[in-house]
Amino acid sequence: MRVFKGHGTENDFVVLPDLDGAVDLSPELVRALCDRHAGIGADGVLRVVRSENDAEAKDMALEAPYFMDYRNADGSVAQMCGNGVRVFLRYLQRATLVELDAAVATRGGVRRVRVSGDGDVTVEMGRPRIRADRPVVTAAPFAPTRADAAIDMPNPHVVVGVPDEVTLAGLDLTRPPAVDPAGPDGQNVEFVARSGPRHLLMRVHERGVGETRSCGTGVCAVVVSAATVDGFGADGVPWRVDVPGGTCEVIWRPDGEVLLTGPAVLVAEIELDETWLAGVGG
Amino acid sequence: MRVFKGHGTENDFVVLPDLDGAVDLSPELVRALCDRHAGIGADGVLRVVRSENDAEAKDMALEAPYFMDYRNADGSVAQMCGNGVRVFLRYLQRATLVELDAAVATRGGVRRVRVSGDGDVTVEMGRPRIRADRPVVTAAPFAPTRADAAIDMPNPHVVVGVPDEVTLAGLDLTRPPAVDPAGPDGQNVEFVARSGPRHLLMRVHERGVGETRSCGTGVCAVVVSAATVDGFGADGVPWRVDVPGGTCEVIWRPDGEVLLTGPAVLVAEIELDETWLAGVGG
Repeated sequence: MRVFKGHGTENDFVVLPDLDGAVDLSPELVRALCDRHAGIGADGVLRVVRSENDAEAKDMALEAPYFMDYRNADGSVAQMCGNGVRVFLRYLQRATLVELDAAVATRGGVRRVRVSGDGDVTVEMGRPRIRADRPVVTAAPFAPTRADAAIDMPNPHVVVGVPDEVTLAGLDLTRPPAVDPAGPDGQNVEFVARSGPRHLLMRVHERGVGETRSCGTGVCAVVVSAATVDGFGADGVPWRVDVPGGTCEVIWRPDGEVLLTGPAVLVAEIELDETWLAGVGG
Repeated sequence: MRVFKGHGTENDFVVLPDLDGAVDLSPELVRALCDRHAGIGADGVLRVVRSENDAEAKDMALEAPYFMDYRNADGSVAQMCGNGVRVFLRYLQRATLVELDAAVATRGGVRRVRVSGDGDVTVEMGRPRIRADRPVVTAAPFAPTRADAAIDMPNPHVVVGVPDEVTLAGLDLTRPPAVDPAGPDGQNVEFVARSGPRHLLMRVHERGVGETRSCGTGVCAVVVSAATVDGFGADGVPWRVDVPGGTCEVIWRPDGEVLLTGPAVLVAEIELDETWLAGVGG
């Protein structure tokens, strides 16, 4: 079995080419691949399959030739991933299946993805929904603070402004921030400091995971929040967001669509050892 | 560039075949390979080179055909690794360079390594030195406790007995245990509970790293400590040690030599992406 490893702002993935839909991607195999010590190691698996060769993709009847079957590292099924779909496109390019752009079917709908001039990849991430509630968030040693915004992207985010980069760097995110009231399904919590005009610095605690190097929907949420606080709104002008794993650009288009642009890197092509594969429980 | 990924009780390595000694293994390349998000991910790199083709190995004039050039994930040079040398042998086997055993040159001297009946790999780890001092160790929420032993293997270890498996599981090793007096170069601290006759359970905090899934010299140290406490001494009878990453067997031979036996797994063969390689700083 041949796979690839890739990452987008250090959110990393095992890309599993399976155009014919022949691979039985069990939760056990996902967990084994994503195991960072006994396997390859990744935040998730991106199975690449032609939509016509996958029953689930056919059921969704999405108008897109390739289906991104995304699984979390714990083996569970996931909808969409803004960093993952960029790496997905990079693989399609590498395999000469597409040139510069593609429509990708995901469980969150069809995403249009394209390569920009400098090689970064842009994804249409959908329209944010700004919720009225703004919970109070506590992350030691920072004082409890009312959030700037609660935003569904469509997964739930809470964005908290902090005064400066030093405060941001000093936050203890080894434990989940306390959110009051918490969302019914939890939430990702983004902490954001200003670095300059339309330039933000972000750290994120993802629900069920912990602090991560990057979160694609979180990067979009902090820009929507800042653009709303500043009164710019959806004006189509680029923002820059620095996360621990790199830098992204976000445009909130006047029609409400959010565009996320960032790097997508293929690190290696990997031939899994047959003895190792045979040892993966089923 | 082609490499392998492998592990021994989940202590994981990038194996870099370089029999001719042609690769310039810079600290930057080591760090990039070991980066768990932007690279392949590993605890260290094992460069495989014929001793006659490596200047450092020739200087040491060790009587062994292959040199294990071991580097830590931070790019620094390291002496020896009991889990790594097992994976090193597994690679030599896979490449049909040896059959069942080899003498491996390391910066810690020549190690004899051989495959046992069940496929596990046995390493001669050298003779322990039991030091007279037994510092007091504190790891929350366990009360400060005088160590069972301080042992050089030859790297420094402090072994602390705990009453049972529940206490062992409850220790907070996210922070380094306090050791008083601490060794001049720090120490690895092993916590050990009894599971049955000659059967130990161990967790370890490695200096400069944190808690790890396994530590080869630490596994040897806890057996030497328990055999000394129990009055068995170096009697040549096998002990079993369970670590978070798997199970090892240790024999303390009557001549003082400690034999470590454990699994060695090759996970995959990896072709690094040329664009990614070109982006590794130098």
